[in-house]
Amino acid sequence: MSTAAEQQSTSQPDAYTPTDRTVPTRSKERASYDRALVHAILDEAYVCHLGFVRDGAPVVLPTLYGRVGDRLYVHGSTGSRPLRMAGQQDPGLAVCLTVTHVDGLVLARSAFHHSINYRSVVIHGTAHQVTDADEKRRALDALVDHVVPGRAADSRPANAKELAATAVLSLDLAEVSAKLRTGGPNDEPEDMDLPHWSGVVPLQKGYGPLVPSADLAAGIDVPDYLREL
Amino acid sequence: MSTAAEQQSTSQPDAYTPTDRTVPTRSKERASYDRALVHAILDEAYVCHLGFVRDGAPVVLPTLYGRVGDRLYVHGSTGSRPLRMAGQQDPGLAVCLTVTHVDGLVLARSAFHHSINYRSVVIHGTAHQVTDADEKRRALDALVDHVVPGRAADSRPANAKELAATAVLSLDLAEVSAKLRTGGPNDEPEDMDLPHWSGVVPLQKGYGPLVPSADLAAGIDVPDYLREL
Repeated sequence: MSTAAEQQSTSQPDAYTPTDRTVPTRSKERASYDRALVHAILDEAYVCHLGFVRDGAPVVLPTLYGRVGDRLYVHGSTGSRPLRMAGQQDPGLAVCLTVTHVDGLVLARSAFHHSINYRSVVIHGTAHQVTDADEKRRALDALVDHVVPGRAADSRPANAKELAATAVLSLDLAEVSAKLRTGGPNDEPEDMDLPHWSGVVPLQKGYGPLVPSADLAAGIDVPDYLREL
Repeated sequence: MSTAAEQQSTSQPDAYTPTDRTVPTRSKERASYDRALVHAILDEAYVCHLGFVRDGAPVVLPTLYGRVGDRLYVHGSTGSRPLRMAGQQDPGLAVCLTVTHVDGLVLARSAFHHSINYRSVVIHGTAHQVTDADEKRRALDALVDHVVPGRAADSRPANAKELAATAVLSLDLAEVSAKLRTGGPNDEPEDMDLPHWSGVVPLQKGYGPLVPSADLAAGIDVPDYLREL
């Protein structure tokens, strides 16, 4: 799998091609199409927000995902709505998949210039049901390894019944953009002497102490891939 | 403002009424319509994911928001796409606004039962441009106070030019549900003796050291509402 992903990435350019949908109408300087940046933003988050249209109205659901090269996977019960819809619809389901990190709170002297520092990726495209059995297994491994790298190899793989109950959607990274804001507030020159504190409150993420299952068998040590978190 | 919000909340029931769109097809036991829980989830997050339909395709954008009672506000440039669309469309713009917290990684013995602990709120509704000047000012205060409570009163309010450049959308909390997962993995009885560590990796959020603006005037202390973070 990694070999295929590496071959794919070496044969592709370093940036995604902008489209009408991925060029912002405002703050164009915050947009990026850099492939490595997009992958890094995607790999750091746990949950994406998957948008689709049902009965003419938008639906946005949080869901886990995994990445293999330039393809994302999401999964769910074969009975869940977006997965049913993608299976029923040919040629696939139009989706918008968005991932966002909030890195800091930007406090300006003026209310107007308050903002946040963030990194986001927005992907437009068409999601398809994965029907190939091998790809489906690789996708499920990627989903587990996205939660904790190395975990897929240290868990029981899905059996036939579980595979049959799980639907997987694929979405190619093609129409993609990142958007990010960094740095301090952009106050107006005439506001500089106002008596308000200004600056950035950084947000930090971390891990709490592990909570082993109450019924964990004796003698099972915490694996290295968890110690490294 | 708080008086109005309090009046509103005391005159309303403690739960939102479920609808076809807010009753999940699966994991119904994870859904909640409790008003206080919904408000708490909304108030704890910084960014929502706002979904709407453009040219028949879904769009999902991360954006700041603020809450006043049972009404949410998002804002943006008068030139931004969803705000333009909501202004052009009568009666408003169909949206789905979703907020998600990831609280922990759930590592089961089987790949199939891997999950995350999360709390999310999904709101379906119609967003309207706020045209009343007083409501617009209150909405902008709520947006700033959502980032840091108490900050709106300690910053320069928007002037006429800034107000004219800012569009605000309102979305009533009516068709709303929360969904949450807590606790450890739900492994199959036959997997209990497998040699894989299982349990939960809690995710924690915190604040880093404040980064004052480089040009911050001397003698401006860190305000109490920031010390309390």
